[in-house]
Amino acid sequence: MRVEFLKFAMIQEIYENYVARIKPIEEIEIIESVNASGFVCAKDIYSPQDLPGFDKSLVDGYAVNASDTKGASPNLPVLLKMAFEVRIGEKPDRTLKPGETAWIPTGGALPQGADAVVMAEHTQIFDNFVEIMKAVAVGENVMKSDEDVKAGEIVLQRNRRIRVNDIQLLLQLGITKITVYRRAKIAVISTGDEIVEPWQTPSFAQIRDSNTYTLVAWLWDLGFSVQRVGHVKDDETSLHRMLEDCVDKYDIVVIAGGSSIGTRDYTARAIERMGKPGVIYHGAMIQPGKPTVFALVGRKPILGLPGNPVSFFVSSRFLLLPVLKRLENDEDFIPRPAGLVRLTKNVPSVQGREHFVRVRVKFEKGDILAEPLFSETAHVSNIHLADGVVRIPSQVEGAYAGQLVEFYAF
Amino acid sequence: MRVEFLKFAMIQEIYENYVARIKPIEEIEIIESVNASGFVCAKDIYSPQDLPGFDKSLVDGYAVNASDTKGASPNLPVLLKMAFEVRIGEKPDRTLKPGETAWIPTGGALPQGADAVVMAEHTQIFDNFVEIMKAVAVGENVMKSDEDVKAGEIVLQRNRRIRVNDIQLLLQLGITKITVYRRAKIAVISTGDEIVEPWQTPSFAQIRDSNTYTLVAWLWDLGFSVQRVGHVKDDETSLHRMLEDCVDKYDIVVIAGGSSIGTRDYTARAIERMGKPGVIYHGAMIQPGKPTVFALVGRKPILGLPGNPVSFFVSSRFLLLPVLKRLENDEDFIPRPAGLVRLTKNVPSVQGREHFVRVRVKFEKGDILAEPLFSETAHVSNIHLADGVVRIPSQVEGAYAGQLVEFYAF
Repeated sequence: MRVEFLKFAMIQEIYENYVARIKPIEEIEIIESVNASGFVCAKDIYSPQDLPGFDKSLVDGYAVNASDTKGASPNLPVLLKMAFEVRIGEKPDRTLKPGETAWIPTGGALPQGADAVVMAEHTQIFDNFVEIMKAVAVGENVMKSDEDVKAGEIVLQRNRRIRVNDIQLLLQLGITKITVYRRAKIAVISTGDEIVEPWQTPSFAQIRDSNTYTLVAWLWDLGFSVQRVGHVKDDETSLHRMLEDCVDKYDIVVIAGGSSIGTRDYTARAIERMGKPGVIYHGAMIQPGKPTVFALVGRKPILGLPGNPVSFFVSSRFLLLPVLKRLENDEDFIPRPAGLVRLTKNVPSVQGREHFVRVRVKFEKGDILAEPLFSETAHVSNIHLADGVVRIPSQVEGAYAGQLVEFYAF
Repeated sequence: MRVEFLKFAMIQEIYENYVARIKPIEEIEIIESVNASGFVCAKDIYSPQDLPGFDKSLVDGYAVNASDTKGASPNLPVLLKMAFEVRIGEKPDRTLKPGETAWIPTGGALPQGADAVVMAEHTQIFDNFVEIMKAVAVGENVMKSDEDVKAGEIVLQRNRRIRVNDIQLLLQLGITKITVYRRAKIAVISTGDEIVEPWQTPSFAQIRDSNTYTLVAWLWDLGFSVQRVGHVKDDETSLHRMLEDCVDKYDIVVIAGGSSIGTRDYTARAIERMGKPGVIYHGAMIQPGKPTVFALVGRKPILGLPGNPVSFFVSSRFLLLPVLKRLENDEDFIPRPAGLVRLTKNVPSVQGREHFVRVRVKFEKGDILAEPLFSETAHVSNIHLADGVVRIPSQVEGAYAGQLVEFYAF
């Protein structure tokens, strides 16, 4: 029942002053590019070659010397001699002479002497001749040899998280292996005297632990190396002992806590016993998610997340995830909205705090409507019904129906 | 060079007439709820209990009988006798009498005789008494026993894809196992005479296969059971033989093709040899992604995706993915935008076709700006640089700078 002086921080302050003090992972590993999605790139990657590497037709049609097509139109076609066919995947062994044309498929290599391609629909075959019914400019319908990527160009920067669509470029360039940072190892500790396991039947006044198992499932989906190390009762010594077990084996320890005054208190004390600098912030100026504890032992992060399911959810996405990303050297660690959505109702908020409001999204005539789900943050069903949250910035007091707000999808 | 009569369909037509004809997977399996993310629920799930299951305090404070606090204010506090403390996770063994109060932590079970909680900050301890400085209404700061979920209520519907946040509710209700449809088994066939493997050095006019490996990586991330079964040359018989090998073993066969006229031709012929009804649509009225072939052998889907990397990408997200989702019984199979974004430049489009334009997204003072990346659809680097695509609907001719458009994140 003791209320101490507590340090709270704005979300921006946490990103700038807390996240910045964490020691990022230094160990690297070399993995197959096809498996690299989700890993953070540990070295700048340069292209070893031009792409596509040869002048390439973008259409099915006829390779020409553009000057031969001057003035060509459906009324006044130009007649060119059909000289040969370019086969896909093969280097043309003949050179196009003035007055000649060659069939070329999409992706085919432009023969020497040609500098443009006329699309098939603007041509007509006529014995051994092709009627060209449209004039083309030099380079028309052709991708130049180094147009997509130039040899020596940086294609992937260090500290960028690799997405599936990066893999396509890597493979196209023949970069089949890549140096990445290893993924973060995360320990999740469940706490609370009222908590039983999901497969147990709670007696009156007890509840099942859904927070830590859901957190583990979510982080696992994101590719982190995460483990629920166990459950401890609400007591400083047990928690401290568990922290001692975990701190050297993992890159970060997450305590899924109760959120009552007493809980935050003993969590902070158990962390402080681990070493300096200890607790940096006792909470974040966000709603929900406020009672989140941010600590460092040396430069290793320990986070205490609130037990209330909705607070836990918001805290894990907006406070924990940036810490995890930064640990993995991801320079893009600040949560980014998926897009804007339009509120269907007024939403109250308190200035000085960032509010994250659960919404259900509806699509209507090119517009995207967000219906706020007002309910207690202690409701579990609320998270399950929502499609995501909208952010009401700390500078404003409330947002109004019809207003566009940032949407973060679940 | 033969151009046949080809059937093209609007994207909506494909969703309604093609996707609807596919036979969804019937096999079910029972899995752990913690692993259920991404699976489609095969049975309606009812709640076996009320949630939270007991009247629960939402704050740290004092349990009271609301009528005892009538008229209480900081100037005129009400004095109640401190009777006992509720411990979290335990059923209170005493009943609150008139004129009494009990300490209760967040999450604690409300004792008999109490019907509200006064927050700690509106109280003052005073020997064996507690000064109540704020009147509370019946039910204030209390979550009723069945407020979150009622016993017998449907919590998860059949044909809904399970998200991580659904798991939290399932576990909270003690539903640790769940009946789902098995995931779809997908065969991916690479085609093209110009294609070599990513680890090979292409000779002049050849390119490496990045499409199928990237597709497999992406679908794997989404939890599908996907396999690249091999590569075939541009030839009807080889493709037909490969199709015969695959069609019984997989739920769907995806042919990653060339996109020239000839390629679509022989792909369609190889598919037609597999049985009726064969090719349903030869293409989709979308840009890029148009030369996508939609076929059925019985009710089993075979899709031919264009070889052009950007077309391939758009086609896989907007045409293939809906088919895969429907195969898995997901009722929510139509792609949904992540939110709205504001165009920074005019974007031309042709009426009657849906355009998907790659964009790079910037965040600026609460607004989200989308910069169109204009470049050839054959550019691989284009996909890697984009954060997603915006959709320009088929009814309009172009979109303008400043306009809000639907954004689909990569």
